Amino acid sequence: MDIFNKALAEHKKYKGKMEIVSRVPLNNKEDLSTYYSPGVAAVSKHLAKHPDQTNIYTNTHNSVAIVSDGSAVLGLGNIGPEGALPVMEGKAILFKKFANIDGYPIVLNTQDPNEIINIVTAIAPSFGGINLEDISAPNCFYIEDQLKKRLTIHIMHDDQHGTAVVVLAGLINACKVTNRKLQDSKVVLIGAGAAGVAIAKLLYQYAKPNIIAIDSKGVITKKRKNLSPEKLLLSSYSQDNTATDLKGSLKGADIFIGVSKSNLLNKEMIRSMAKDPIIFALANPNPEITPTDAINAGAAVVATGRSDYPNQVNNVLAFPGLFRGALDTQSTINESHKLAAAEAIANIIKSPTKTQIIPSPFDKNVVKVVAAVYKK
Amino acid sequence: MDIFNKALAEHKKYKGKMEIVSRVPLNNKEDLSTYYSPGVAAVSKHLAKHPDQTNIYTNTHNSVAIVSDGSAVLGLGNIGPEGALPVMEGKAILFKKFANIDGYPIVLNTQDPNEIINIVTAIAPSFGGINLEDISAPNCFYIEDQLKKRLTIHIMHDDQHGTAVVVLAGLINACKVTNRKLQDSKVVLIGAGAAGVAIAKLLYQYAKPNIIAIDSKGVITKKRKNLSPEKLLLSSYSQDNTATDLKGSLKGADIFIGVSKSNLLNKEMIRSMAKDPIIFALANPNPEITPTDAINAGAAVVATGRSDYPNQVNNVLAFPGLFRGALDTQSTINESHKLAAAEAIANIIKSPTKTQIIPSPFDKNVVKVVAAVYKK
Repeated sequence: MDIFNKALAEHKKYKGKMEIVSRVPLNNKEDLSTYYSPGVAAVSKHLAKHPDQTNIYTNTHNSVAIVSDGSAVLGLGNIGPEGALPVMEGKAILFKKFANIDGYPIVLNTQDPNEIINIVTAIAPSFGGINLEDISAPNCFYIEDQLKKRLTIHIMHDDQHGTAVVVLAGLINACKVTNRKLQDSKVVLIGAGAAGVAIAKLLYQYAKPNIIAIDSKGVITKKRKNLSPEKLLLSSYSQDNTATDLKGSLKGADIFIGVSKSNLLNKEMIRSMAKDPIIFALANPNPEITPTDAINAGAAVVATGRSDYPNQVNNVLAFPGLFRGALDTQSTINESHKLAAAEAIANIIKSPTKTQIIPSPFDKNVVKVVAAVYKK
Repeated sequence: MDIFNKALAEHKKYKGKMEIVSRVPLNNKEDLSTYYSPGVAAVSKHLAKHPDQTNIYTNTHNSVAIVSDGSAVLGLGNIGPEGALPVMEGKAILFKKFANIDGYPIVLNTQDPNEIINIVTAIAPSFGGINLEDISAPNCFYIEDQLKKRLTIHIMHDDQHGTAVVVLAGLINACKVTNRKLQDSKVVLIGAGAAGVAIAKLLYQYAKPNIIAIDSKGVITKKRKNLSPEKLLLSSYSQDNTATDLKGSLKGADIFIGVSKSNLLNKEMIRSMAKDPIIFALANPNPEITPTDAINAGAAVVATGRSDYPNQVNNVLAFPGLFRGALDTQSTINESHKLAAAEAIANIIKSPTKTQIIPSPFDKNVVKVVAAVYKK
């Protein structure tokens, strides 16, 4: 049975992956009076007077809503709220496993960005943070930006920032393994959605490499008309570029980063790259090229988004710690936190190798070092 | 330390009453691949094609959103979302304790009924049911009505229907204890909000007693102008009524039901009622009269909303079973379900007495007999 059939069977067996349980005793009338009526009235009155103290008396100190409109689920595209729900439940159990955070899966049957902003704003008092998930570009940029302006709790679109942090962490170590400097590297990035834009921005902030970004229309250059603000920014990251497509751009490139579709990359293209190229083929569930093919074509380091290959670039290395630290310090994440988180994740691997550039999600140091970036 | 100070201290100690935990193993890469990426993609694809099957592959078969706008919290009035949150968390742990249902507390920072309808409609795919809670009248009637029209999942405003079911259950047995028939009784009901309206409607459906309903402006009669549709209905339930206030209405009455404010009822009024009157003083957290005073004035049976007196009229006798049965049978509640639930709760007490007209919330038969009403 392959992993997909196994997943279907297991999901059917468990009928949902999470449950809500009490942390207080509920064994007798005294308990009912203490944790529900009439006792809870005292807590309600207190919080009505001091609404900023919900994190002392309720679960908001530890809760995150995992919100998706189902418009860009994994690599499956716009499959709607029902299709998104098992992913959000998965995220909830990862939050608990890796950071002891209570994640509430909330899928929406609207994809109107202003409606989404209003809904998330309205439900925000219930939670300590909002993890936006699997929302397509460019709506995701606008939604996250507006929510950050409206709300004081931690807001993060994980497909952007979680991914970018882990990609940078992996690249830091992949550069060590291949003896190159990121700032001197030519990076070809295909896919200019949520993840692609955030990766390019973070890499550029970190080391200003030469980044050639490509979307479905080809290389993103200033010459193209009607570029979105995000793509206009990406176009400014490339130096001396004349190629117009992936194949042309890859000639002599040091690093390939794919956050696009399966099978976009072939062996010939890899052979045209610089010596010991780094291949991050991150399309989900199927990468731009298989690791076996990439290595056969000369790739020195290969990373994918999957847990069944070495070097899994998985958001789970970033989001649990980023939210754990934000909840504990009542902070919101900024650019320096993200850069520090990427370095902290990379530094966990003392001696990176071709097949180990990033730590395992099960390494308990990961959440600790990432959460600690808020304290610096 | 009284119950209110104890509740404050305990809530501060636990910092929230619930948590979200995994029901699936998450111990290695194989588990990650099965319950998250890449395996979950198979489940997402399947649900995108078959959105009606979330209850087979996700937690919607067992989940209920507990939604409040904080406009009518307990007896405390409009105290906002933060004040409402500890009550909703309390409800979540009661759902789990009594019916093994996963309740998600969601408080809203809007009180606009149309916005609430849009928000609940948008988040509905995440859940198997919606428990509306502590939303003030008359908005609660409109919101529940519109949501029932828009959504196919089980919707219930517990302050209305949960309360009404338990009040009717208690009255059935209180009538047995005092040897009267509900259909021949004069009932004085004070408080014409969510609970009062629903109680009057259910009692009238059950036995057509003479019900005199009173709101803050006095007895509700057809002579009053600008009555809401709900209050107009209530006015049609009274026979031969000339009194205009609580004191006058209570003369010779068999049953007092208060869902209003503390200290509205005094001993003199009880003495003016029929022999062996039934007093349901349900204001929360402090009843319309203390049970001690009511009994001293001649009350035969006294019920309150509190767990620290005998005969607690507590919604927890109704909502867990009503939602358990609805989720298990994929039904929505109707009037005959509510009447059957009230009778089922009453019938658990084989030989009712003055101090035991309703079962304890900890009686495990309660949820079973209530959930079973959907199968009849």
